[in-house]
Amino acid sequence: MTQSNQTEFPARAEQSAEAAQPESAPAAPARADRPGTPLPPSPRTTPHVPVQVDHTPTATVAHGFGRIPVTDVSPVVEGGAYAAKAVVGEAIPIRAKVFREGHDAVNASVILTDPDGNETRHDMTPMAPRGLDPWEAWVRLDREGAWTFRVEGWSDPWGTWLHNAEAKLPAGVDIELVCLEGRDLFERTAQVAHSAGDPIEASILRATAQLLIPQRPAEDLLDVATGSGLAKAMRKFGPRELVSPTADFPIFVDRKKALFSSWYEFFPRSEGATYDEDTDTWTSGTFDTCHTRLEEIAAMGFDVVYFPPIHPIGNAFKKGKNNSLDATDADPGSPWAVGSAAGGHDAIHPDLGDWESFDRLVAKATELGLEVALDFALQASPDHPWVEAHPEWFTTRLDGTIAYAENPPKKYQDIYPINFDNDPDGIYNEVLRILKLWMSHGVRIFRVDNPHTKPVEFWGWVFAQIRKTDPDVLFFAEAFTKPAMMAALGKVGFHMSYTYFTWRTTKAELEEYLGELSRDTDAFFRPNFFVNTPDINPFHLQSGNQAMFAIRALLATTLSPSWGVYSGFELFEHAALAPGREEYLDSEKYEYRPRDYSAEPNLNMLMGRLNAIRHAHPALQQLRRIDFHTVPSDSIIAFSKVDGDDKVLVICSLDPNNTVESEVHLDMSKLGLAQDAPLPVTDELTGASFTWGARNFVRLTPLQPAHILSIR
Amino acid sequence: MTQSNQTEFPARAEQSAEAAQPESAPAAPARADRPGTPLPPSPRTTPHVPVQVDHTPTATVAHGFGRIPVTDVSPVVEGGAYAAKAVVGEAIPIRAKVFREGHDAVNASVILTDPDGNETRHDMTPMAPRGLDPWEAWVRLDREGAWTFRVEGWSDPWGTWLHNAEAKLPAGVDIELVCLEGRDLFERTAQVAHSAGDPIEASILRATAQLLIPQRPAEDLLDVATGSGLAKAMRKFGPRELVSPTADFPIFVDRKKALFSSWYEFFPRSEGATYDEDTDTWTSGTFDTCHTRLEEIAAMGFDVVYFPPIHPIGNAFKKGKNNSLDATDADPGSPWAVGSAAGGHDAIHPDLGDWESFDRLVAKATELGLEVALDFALQASPDHPWVEAHPEWFTTRLDGTIAYAENPPKKYQDIYPINFDNDPDGIYNEVLRILKLWMSHGVRIFRVDNPHTKPVEFWGWVFAQIRKTDPDVLFFAEAFTKPAMMAALGKVGFHMSYTYFTWRTTKAELEEYLGELSRDTDAFFRPNFFVNTPDINPFHLQSGNQAMFAIRALLATTLSPSWGVYSGFELFEHAALAPGREEYLDSEKYEYRPRDYSAEPNLNMLMGRLNAIRHAHPALQQLRRIDFHTVPSDSIIAFSKVDGDDKVLVICSLDPNNTVESEVHLDMSKLGLAQDAPLPVTDELTGASFTWGARNFVRLTPLQPAHILSIR
Repeated sequence: MTQSNQTEFPARAEQSAEAAQPESAPAAPARADRPGTPLPPSPRTTPHVPVQVDHTPTATVAHGFGRIPVTDVSPVVEGGAYAAKAVVGEAIPIRAKVFREGHDAVNASVILTDPDGNETRHDMTPMAPRGLDPWEAWVRLDREGAWTFRVEGWSDPWGTWLHNAEAKLPAGVDIELVCLEGRDLFERTAQVAHSAGDPIEASILRATAQLLIPQRPAEDLLDVATGSGLAKAMRKFGPRELVSPTADFPIFVDRKKALFSSWYEFFPRSEGATYDEDTDTWTSGTFDTCHTRLEEIAAMGFDVVYFPPIHPIGNAFKKGKNNSLDATDADPGSPWAVGSAAGGHDAIHPDLGDWESFDRLVAKATELGLEVALDFALQASPDHPWVEAHPEWFTTRLDGTIAYAENPPKKYQDIYPINFDNDPDGIYNEVLRILKLWMSHGVRIFRVDNPHTKPVEFWGWVFAQIRKTDPDVLFFAEAFTKPAMMAALGKVGFHMSYTYFTWRTTKAELEEYLGELSRDTDAFFRPNFFVNTPDINPFHLQSGNQAMFAIRALLATTLSPSWGVYSGFELFEHAALAPGREEYLDSEKYEYRPRDYSAEPNLNMLMGRLNAIRHAHPALQQLRRIDFHTVPSDSIIAFSKVDGDDKVLVICSLDPNNTVESEVHLDMSKLGLAQDAPLPVTDELTGASFTWGARNFVRLTPLQPAHILSIR
Repeated sequence: MTQSNQTEFPARAEQSAEAAQPESAPAAPARADRPGTPLPPSPRTTPHVPVQVDHTPTATVAHGFGRIPVTDVSPVVEGGAYAAKAVVGEAIPIRAKVFREGHDAVNASVILTDPDGNETRHDMTPMAPRGLDPWEAWVRLDREGAWTFRVEGWSDPWGTWLHNAEAKLPAGVDIELVCLEGRDLFERTAQVAHSAGDPIEASILRATAQLLIPQRPAEDLLDVATGSGLAKAMRKFGPRELVSPTADFPIFVDRKKALFSSWYEFFPRSEGATYDEDTDTWTSGTFDTCHTRLEEIAAMGFDVVYFPPIHPIGNAFKKGKNNSLDATDADPGSPWAVGSAAGGHDAIHPDLGDWESFDRLVAKATELGLEVALDFALQASPDHPWVEAHPEWFTTRLDGTIAYAENPPKKYQDIYPINFDNDPDGIYNEVLRILKLWMSHGVRIFRVDNPHTKPVEFWGWVFAQIRKTDPDVLFFAEAFTKPAMMAALGKVGFHMSYTYFTWRTTKAELEEYLGELSRDTDAFFRPNFFVNTPDINPFHLQSGNQAMFAIRALLATTLSPSWGVYSGFELFEHAALAPGREEYLDSEKYEYRPRDYSAEPNLNMLMGRLNAIRHAHPALQQLRRIDFHTVPSDSIIAFSKVDGDDKVLVICSLDPNNTVESEVHLDMSKLGLAQDAPLPVTDELTGASFTWGARNFVRLTPLQPAHILSIR
């Protein structure tokens, strides 16, 4: 995005919301005894007529409890109207409360339906606290596409019998009956095993049934009842009764990059740009002059290269250096002021190249294992071809002029916002055409500028269309706004989003935020932790303290499966436009900024090492399994991430100025270990191996602010 | 209920749940990488075949966001599958998050649809914190029956214009345009007002439009824009654009007694029972000997009289005194062992009377303003006529015997639990027949014994049937079990429920529990705070401390709109069966217990006064508006309840042994007052009037443990 008026920073979100709401009118308290206004709606009500396309991805009918009640099912997004998120192979939790009347045993399964309609059943297990009846199953969905899941609660005769046997046999109560019921149960199950083509389990079950002889000592019978072989066979083939399914809820499985990615952003025009001192003019970099930088980025292990808009830039009200209003012809203008006589969103800025050189760039990136992400900024410069061809896609004010962007009384006359309500069919389909044009040139990721200034419903429609033909295409929301809007954009289908990480710096803030991201919003919101952006020069980096830059990179790369960096960060660029402003001085948004990326000091090595560690460790490629551990000092944060057998423990200083030391108390159960187990670890940053335990001592310095410990 | 095995006390809920789940099998951790079991279901899966009657009260289709997103709508129960609860005239909050893209103003309304399909619109107002976009409207539904509501988010041109005017006019920006847009808006709205038959508002709007002359000073224009008359007219007739409705969600409005009631429980057989010392035999009290007690109860302001089961009592395995197994013919047996040769749930115990004397009892109660609530205990003594006529309504074990109640290895052979799955059509409809029989004799309230031992789905079916013809009939759940089950019973339609109040004694516990009841579960769970029951002689009363009895009555009557007492409480009965057991010694469940209710000391006066205060104060008749105030001492609890203009403040000691004193710091905003406002109050217990403020000093004694202050 380009105009600061269009970014609602979370720190200001409340004020923004305040500003958007006139104080006078709605401030009156809601009076319950005020009579309602009778309907039907008078002519003054303009009902919204949606685009003549089905906006609704799916529809799930809420239904009441079945015979075995199942409730609080997750992940369910807006009652099932939208698909929950997963990527291929990701472990995701499916949870529900399952309970029943009386004392008989209850059990629960998850039924997954793959995109072809094939169903598989997965056992759920009760979680603590049991009094609250939570059940869960962690499942991995092994292919892309539209899956569904449902939870089935069921009555568990085997569980009931076993409970009875364990209570009655030692007490010598109803021995005959217990044996009779057990034999019947095992023999019936043996038949099922036999029919299912498992003669061995069938034999085990039949033989076990024969062992239930009432005359035997109770402890022998109890041994039979509680044998592990029996349990295994009964769990596999035992009866499930009163099976009570929920609705089927959608999960869309994306390719893995929707969750795990490492982004590098640079302005192509800066890369290879040259300055002629004699004429005091710049020559723009081009797609072709970017190839070397792509190689360097790939070498550091990044896998997405993101370019700000590459379209022609408008001349009307063009912004000069530092967002000034007095631009000259020599100023390149902001790439976010899209459109000029040379074309709009479907054109390439002539300074950068043409379709052929763009295709070469994409090919080069692909060869390097990099994906190109384009900025998709749905707004127009007054010079955009749309303005003349389709004035209905903008708002014409009563004085006949087209409305420019405003944050009253401030004006942003270089930008015309789109009006999505005048001609939704026209603008919706034009957007689709443009996206597909870039997709046809190899762009499979779009970073969407300010999506929260466009209708949520519009995005839902766009994603539903794209998903039909190109489910691999990913959208990354540049949403810095209020939580409900951030969530809504994720729910309608943005694959990932910028986050509040940029403003979370203390241990308490980070722990709370990661808790929310990993457990509360994981069904629909995937974070991408950018450490900086062309719009955001965070206060905590403005001192230029190099350890702070390292700490932020360490945190971003280990806390979140997706992270990103805007070029210059690795060179510790930090000069602010003005005190109290989180904007860069001499922002690259308004001028050429070629850089010597090999200048020392830099973070190239660290970034490369971090990306390598991330690629080597599945635990760091996922969001949902993160646990924080206790460190008495607030200057040190400690957390572990786990995926299957891969376990990583991160201990990171939050103090860039001082050596900090503290004990670290590990909750070993979060690592699947006994509290007194030895913990052999390797520090992935240094290669050193040592053995930790539940209690450890750490000393971290500004030069070595973290341990990233893989557990052997 | 009768058998301690059938009560799951919350304190023991976790163990019970544990016990119901065999430890061995499901304890294996959920392994995400364990492959799922392929489906379709093998023959061992017995799908539940529901009764051939529609179990689902309503069905709501989840749909995605409209043009203006609305989410997190409440009250919505199980996605709209069940109706949220309200009673006639009760103020209920309707809430949602409503937000939109960009900077234009958003607004929201609630549309209520009454049982005849008539719609009314109610303005919502934004709540704090605004950054989180919560909106609410408190509405009162003025008649019984099936209502629905929906939330409409909409674009608010008036709000947008006013915000612009307030920002631009003082800054001298776009004055002409602001005036032009304002005039257009007001004139269009004037036409709407005119069409709606409101020529005065139309004139005001037209005249105001004429005042927007760009040449006028900005402050004059601002005065015009922000005038309260204009705001009123615009709020009433101004445009609503892009109106985006949610689904319509059900609310069922019950008669007021479903929320506000005062219950008194006694055993009719005890009332008027006589003991013949010569023969060492008892003569049972009868319906006819209960009339005097009804008069006394009504005089104390109770409005529901609840009788334990009045049906014939089984003889098989009959329980003697103190639940002993060696009953003699002289023992009357537990009323919860329903059924004998004399009849089952559709019969009257011959000792108590006959249909005519029952009708006389109901008529007497009605005359006194009392409703009769019958116990509905769905279980059978082995002597119940069903056992022979309908063995399919019970569980026949493999040894050919009918299963009795068990909590293995314990046996409760005097009780046969119902099996609802063998012949659901049969047993479901038999239950309906029995309920309608008693309803036809004037019983409009049932206290349901141990509902959590019967299928939740069954209750949902029962209530849906009853509601069709007799929506005034109320069901009170004797559910002392886990939270999810308590909630589920409320969701499927129990009008009120027993609660954990019986075990909540500290200030922190009470505040937390009331917060949950008033805000988290109010859509589906209505509490009835019983201070004791024949099954529960709470530990805190077992010392017999009279102040403690008073405190519990004070808390129950003021914290909850419904409360109840089991006879003997007012006489401070407190002897426990055994140390560590919350059961009464010489429980009336197993023997006759006639009482001299006028014996001193007693709580008759206090109970009468409390019921009178409750009847006089609407604030105490509702659940949803309760706020706790700060008292430094943990021995004193302070809370206020508000309904419209009625405001009551309760300060109650929690220490029955000592005089306690403390400051009380009132959050005056919760009373709708300025923090420094004087607070003229009357103590409803003593009649004394005085003036309080935000900070007050209280001293409470065991003899005078509370103030109930009405605010004048």
